[in-house]
Formats: sequence, C-alpha cells, structure tokens
Amino acid sequence: MKQTPGKKLRVALLGCGVVGSQVIRLMREQADDLAARVGAPLELAGVAVRRPGRARDVDVDPELITTDAEALVTRDDVDIVVEVIGGIEPARSLILAAMNSGKSVVTANKALLAEDGATIHRAARDNSVDLYFEAAVAGAIPLIRPLRESLAGDHVHRVLGIVNGTTNYILDKMDSSGASFSDALEEAQALGYAEADPTADVEGFDAAAKAAILAGIAFHSRVTAADVHREGITEITATDVASAKAMGYVIKLLAICARSEDGRSFGVRVHPAMIPRTHPLAGVREAYNAVFVEAESAGQLMFYGAGAGGAPTASAVLGDIVAVARNRLAGTRGPEESTYADLTVHPVGETVTRYHVSLDVADKPGVLARVADMFAKQDVSIQTVRQEGLGADAQLVLVTHRASDAALSATIDGLRELDIVRDVVSVMRVEGEDAS
Amino acid sequence: MKQTPGKKLRVALLGCGVVGSQVIRLMREQADDLAARVGAPLELAGVAVRRPGRARDVDVDPELITTDAEALVTRDDVDIVVEVIGGIEPARSLILAAMNSGKSVVTANKALLAEDGATIHRAARDNSVDLYFEAAVAGAIPLIRPLRESLAGDHVHRVLGIVNGTTNYILDKMDSSGASFSDALEEAQALGYAEADPTADVEGFDAAAKAAILAGIAFHSRVTAADVHREGITEITATDVASAKAMGYVIKLLAICARSEDGRSFGVRVHPAMIPRTHPLAGVREAYNAVFVEAESAGQLMFYGAGAGGAPTASAVLGDIVAVARNRLAGTRGPEESTYADLTVHPVGETVTRYHVSLDVADKPGVLARVADMFAKQDVSIQTVRQEGLGADAQLVLVTHRASDAALSATIDGLRELDIVRDVVSVMRVEGEDAS
Repeated sequence: MKQTPGKKLRVALLGCGVVGSQVIRLMREQADDLAARVGAPLELAGVAVRRPGRARDVDVDPELITTDAEALVTRDDVDIVVEVIGGIEPARSLILAAMNSGKSVVTANKALLAEDGATIHRAARDNSVDLYFEAAVAGAIPLIRPLRESLAGDHVHRVLGIVNGTTNYILDKMDSSGASFSDALEEAQALGYAEADPTADVEGFDAAAKAAILAGIAFHSRVTAADVHREGITEITATDVASAKAMGYVIKLLAICARSEDGRSFGVRVHPAMIPRTHPLAGVREAYNAVFVEAESAGQLMFYGAGAGGAPTASAVLGDIVAVARNRLAGTRGPEESTYADLTVHPVGETVTRYHVSLDVADKPGVLARVADMFAKQDVSIQTVRQEGLGADAQLVLVTHRASDAALSATIDGLRELDIVRDVVSVMRVEGEDAS
Repeated sequence: MKQTPGKKLRVALLGCGVVGSQVIRLMREQADDLAARVGAPLELAGVAVRRPGRARDVDVDPELITTDAEALVTRDDVDIVVEVIGGIEPARSLILAAMNSGKSVVTANKALLAEDGATIHRAARDNSVDLYFEAAVAGAIPLIRPLRESLAGDHVHRVLGIVNGTTNYILDKMDSSGASFSDALEEAQALGYAEADPTADVEGFDAAAKAAILAGIAFHSRVTAADVHREGITEITATDVASAKAMGYVIKLLAICARSEDGRSFGVRVHPAMIPRTHPLAGVREAYNAVFVEAESAGQLMFYGAGAGGAPTASAVLGDIVAVARNRLAGTRGPEESTYADLTVHPVGETVTRYHVSLDVADKPGVLARVADMFAKQDVSIQTVRQEGLGADAQLVLVTHRASDAALSATIDGLRELDIVRDVVSVMRVEGEDAS
C-alpha cells in the first residue's frame, strides 16, 4: 500500500493488562509491517492505567503512561482509541467521550457491547467514526468480520459454539480425568485459565454476552445480555459427566443463537448440553473455542482457535487497528451496526430440542408406565429409556425426541409430584444430533 | 443502514452456469435483505452468456441476456461486474475492460488470479476500483477476508489445508471403501463432484492456484501458480491408502504455504501427504474443505466448510457484492493487494518434512543395513522401520525424521541403484505431526 507522506496514526490505549501489554509489544515489534499494511506508521500516543507504578509484561515509556484516561481519549493528536479495560464503567464513558471527539474505537469489551451496545453503536454513527470489536468474541478467531461481511449476502439460520475457554477447560478436565467441578475449577485457576472470582465464566455470563453480540449480528437485530437464557456449569457433577460419557456424549457449555422455523423470531441461550462424541465440537479440548455457523447458502461453516489469552486477543485487536487506520487514511468507515431486521427474541420456553433426564425412582412395578404417562401428557415423546442400578438405587435415564422447553418443564414439574419419583437427578439438553 | 434515496447499484453478471444462476436466484430472493444491508437496492443490469438459448437453473428475463459481454461490462449504467466464467480468457480482458470503465469487480476466478493476478490488481489500483475474490478459494469459507483483514496485525507462519473438494471426495472414498483411484473418480464424476475432464482437480492445478493466492496474501508477496510445487493424486493406489490406514494415517491432498525458519522466504506446495488420523484435517470428509492458519500471535486457527458448489460459492460472491456495493455508496474502496514484503519463494528442495518410503527389497541378510546406510549418507535420519510380508514379497516401510526434499530425493536416487532394492514402491510426505 502506498505510504501517505508525513501522516501517522496515533493510538491511545486504555488498559495495560494481559491484552494491553501484548498490543504494545506487537505494535513495537511489527511496526514496519503494520506501517506497510496501513499505509502510514502507527504510533502509541499514550496508555491510560489505574496504577502507574505496577509491574507490567512490557516496557512502556513512562512519559506515555497516564492515569487521566478522559484527557487522553479527547486529545487532539489521538486518532484511534483502543479500549481493553473491560466492564461497563468507566469503559463506556471513555468510549463515548472518544467518539464524541471524533476518534475511532477498537474494543474487546463484550460485557459493554452486550449490555449497552445500542448506545455505543449510535455514538459511532452520530460521530461518523468506526467501532470495531473482533476481539470481543472468541479471541483471535475471526468471527465478527466473517458474520458481518463475508456472510452479508446470506441468511444465517444458527450460530452454535463453544465461546468460553475457562468453562471448556473445566468440562474437558472433568471429562478426561473424572474430576469434580470444584477440583477442575481449582486446577483451571492454578493454571491461569480461571479468575480468582470465576463467576462471570462458570455462571455463563461471559458466554451470554458473546451470544448476544453474535445473535445481533447474525440476525440483524438488537440483542442484549438480558435477552439470553443463561445457565452455568456449577451444578454439573462428575456423575453427570460419567453418565454422558457412558452414552457416547460429552458435556459442553454451548452458546446457541437459532432462528425459529418461521424465521420471524430467534432464541439465544447459553447452557451446558450433551453432544455426541462424534460431533466436531466434542473434539474441542482445553481452553479452545469453536463456533459453527449455519447459513442458507453457505451451509455449515466452522471457525476454531484460541478463544482467549493475551497474544491471541491482541492479534484480533491489531487486525482491527489496521482496519480502522486504513479507513481513516481513506476518509471512510467500516460497516455500521445492522439492526434493520428487528426480529423478536422468543422466550426460552419456545426452544425446541432434545432432553436427557435422570430420575431416582422407587423400586416398584409400574414405575415406567407412570413416568411415561407423565411425558405423554405433555406430548413429549421418549426416544430411549433405560434403567441403571437395581432396587433402591434404581435410576431411570430417558432421552426425549425434540420437544419445547415449556413442555419439558411442565413434564419435570409433574414428575416431581409423583410419589414414585424420589428425585429428578438431572435434566440436560442434547444438541448436535440430527435425529428428531 | 440508511437507504440512499434514489440510488441503486447495478450488477452485470458474466456467466450463468452453476454459480451464476445461484447468484441471480439469491439476488432475487434476498432482494430486501440485500438492499437493507447495502443501503440501496441491487439490480441485475445484464447477464452475459455464450449460448443464450441454453436451459438454466434459474429464470432470467430474456431482455437481460446478452452474448456481448464486452458491451455489457462497459455500459454506463453498470456499477459492479461479477465474473463467474472462469479460465484466463476472455475473463481477463473482460475484467480489465470493466475496471478501465470504472466498474468494481467481484470474481471467483482462481486460475486467472494465480496466473496473472498482478495485472488484475494493478488495473484495480490504477482505476481506483475494488477487486474482491472470496469465492476464488475454498468456496463459502471466509478465508480471504480473515487473512487480508482480521490477521492484518499478525505474522502468518503457515497456511495448510484441504482446498479441493473433488480430490478430497476421491481420497475419502478410497479410504472408506478401499476403492481404487479410478473407481473413486468414476463415482465422483457420477455424483457431479468431478468434471468429465478431471485434470484440473486430480493433477492439483486447482489446488495450486488457490495455494498461490493464499500464499500471496499470507506473506504479502506476489505468488503465481508457477511458483507452486504441484503433485496430483492420480498415482495414489489402494495399497498406499491401506498401508497409510494400517499405520494410523490418512492420505489427503494438502496445500501448504510455509515461511522458512529465517522468515525471509517461503515455500508453496500442493501434494498428497499422510496425516495422522487424530489430526483435525483427517476428519474432513467428502467434498468439504478445511484450512489451518498458524500465526505468531493468534496461534492456530481452523476454517471449515463447503469448498465448492453453486449455492456456497454464490454466498461468497454475494458477500463480496455487498461489500463492494457499500464501498461504492461510501465512495471508498476495500484493501488493495499487499505485496510489500516481497519475499522469495524457495525451491521445493528446501522444504523440510518427514517421509514415508516403501521399498520392495531382496530377501537377503544385510538388506536393512545397506538401506539404512543410504539414508545416513544423505543425513536423513530414520524414525521407524518395519518389514511387511516375507521372503520374495518382503517390503521395507521406513518413516524418516524431518529432512529436506533435496536430501530425500538424493536418498531415493541412491536406493534405486542398490541391487537389493527391487522397487521404490512409494514415497510420500508425512504432515501434521509435531514430532521431528
């Protein structure tokens, strides 16, 4: 690309943690390449941090460090603001201040985009600046750009994937070693795959934010985290994992954005589910991410890679910086938020899938008949049923055909009232099978 | 996106075969969605075909059909030219004429881009128009855009994948059923996966063109099909496939673009290779494609999907049409060709990988010692050796550690001269293993 003489693009960085320090390192190490690809040099204009004295993974010129993020994002000599602080505030205020000052923004902030993306996108449009956020979903895996641009001529039916590395690490560990949830979590924490407070990951909040962003782009509608049905993995037991394994399944935390059959609404949900071991997502190990996209013409696409980590996330941020920088040089902007379709998010009760249900039942004749009758009353058809254990330890394990979440819930409520059902041990969705 | 009042974007289509007819169908069926995503309606301005009377998969207004492609691409009311004719001429002349008349171009033409991409890219730059070609490589799989844009801030080390659906179908069939190459080819032809003249696919020309395009983008250098070391699959026998299977391998036709260790040159090659059955590419069945991209910061990424077919390819073309249309409305252009790195393509002799060698040997004492000595002379280290069969049918099967192609070739030449080696039955590269 031709160099624009004299012009350089100045980048302000908000946050200098795991991702921010890698962004600085890469901007420095790849300066010549980036300049050639952009058409002008990129220069670090300043780095806003909370604790300037803190030890960092990268050397930063002390003169670039500031605690006054607000002043930095509105400075006249800044072209692009990169936000890698995370969380809602002060990130939102800083991004809005930057945009109102005419800066383009690159962010990795899934929580903010899922909670209040509308405000941020509107500010980008009103100020004619760019908003790029490839790093907000699935780390280094190019997913936002393919969905927003490559599939812009197609009709997406479903996005289904593993978008949280921490929970995948934990579930993979439970599956491979038989560990309990708490032991697997502890190991993930020791290895840096899980935070000291793991709530955002293990309760599915992180995956739900990503699901909201993906659904909004895939279905050209506005989706917030509140629209996402969310269940975490904290109640998954070693027994659940072993039982899934025995049946040829593995348990994964899935994010699923699926259009309804009439195409006029869609559902967004994050929950653990059993998938067949032969499904490509079953082979996604450790902290990796993988996402399936099913589109009308393209068919089934899969994207796989590192979903988190400093360098992979920084790679996605850098890609966005190059795009935004090229746009600024050309006096143009990338694609805006697209919400024209304005589809409704349907309640989780309308979700249709298969279920795996384990029941502790009394050791009496006629138990199966009464259990089966309860499923039949709600029109939930049973595909397989088998008894595990004997006598007082007997469990009934049932797998249903496709049924609505509402019908299944009513069935479970009914089962709980039967005197012969001592306990509903587990209820889990089964995904990734074509069989109905 | 805001609609631009009164403005519409007019598309001229060159070719109305498998892909072109799907492009017309999708433009019609998704007209409202496309208009909303572009910000203005897309309209078909004309369709150039060779045989206007021919039956087509889609109804086209006869008034739009023309045999005068040259007149169509220069018409004042055309904004975007979509070329899905394929081949070098007349595609090249038509694309150049279109660009010289200020039209942006979307093409699926891998052969032309790999043979003479420089001319086409130069014309796009000189005329300030867009050139988009997502559909030229791996059909519906977003690969060009992620490499060109998402990874623009990263340093790509290697691109490795299955980029030809026909050969993958044939090799998969040979693997799963034990069929010979010619039987599997016949089946592929009967099912429409292979052309009546299958040369471009089975001799690796199609994959080589795609490899040239991928390498050029990944390494920011100019690469043509002539730079690609190319071997097809016509000499793969059922015995090769069975022998690979017995050792836990599967044979795939791979395209490999790999930077040298010093980073100053790279190699591009297309050839059959053995990969372990545990490798994710081993699970790519039938006519599917999958490509690994290994980058410094992003780590290992994989892209998977339908690599050919009318609708999937049309999905990629439509995505490009939307991008080009948005650019025209905004008065801007997408990224230009990037060849600033100007790296050298090194000869295949410098390629370093592992090899699987089968030898028909005499039934004499001391055979292994003499064979091993020949490898040692060229400094090729042997990882495993085993004898298959007995007496006059004895075969030696050797797998080497990593060695250069040149050293391996010299070893094979030497082996052929040994009186105890009756035949060099097969020599095949082994890829996808970390072991050295």
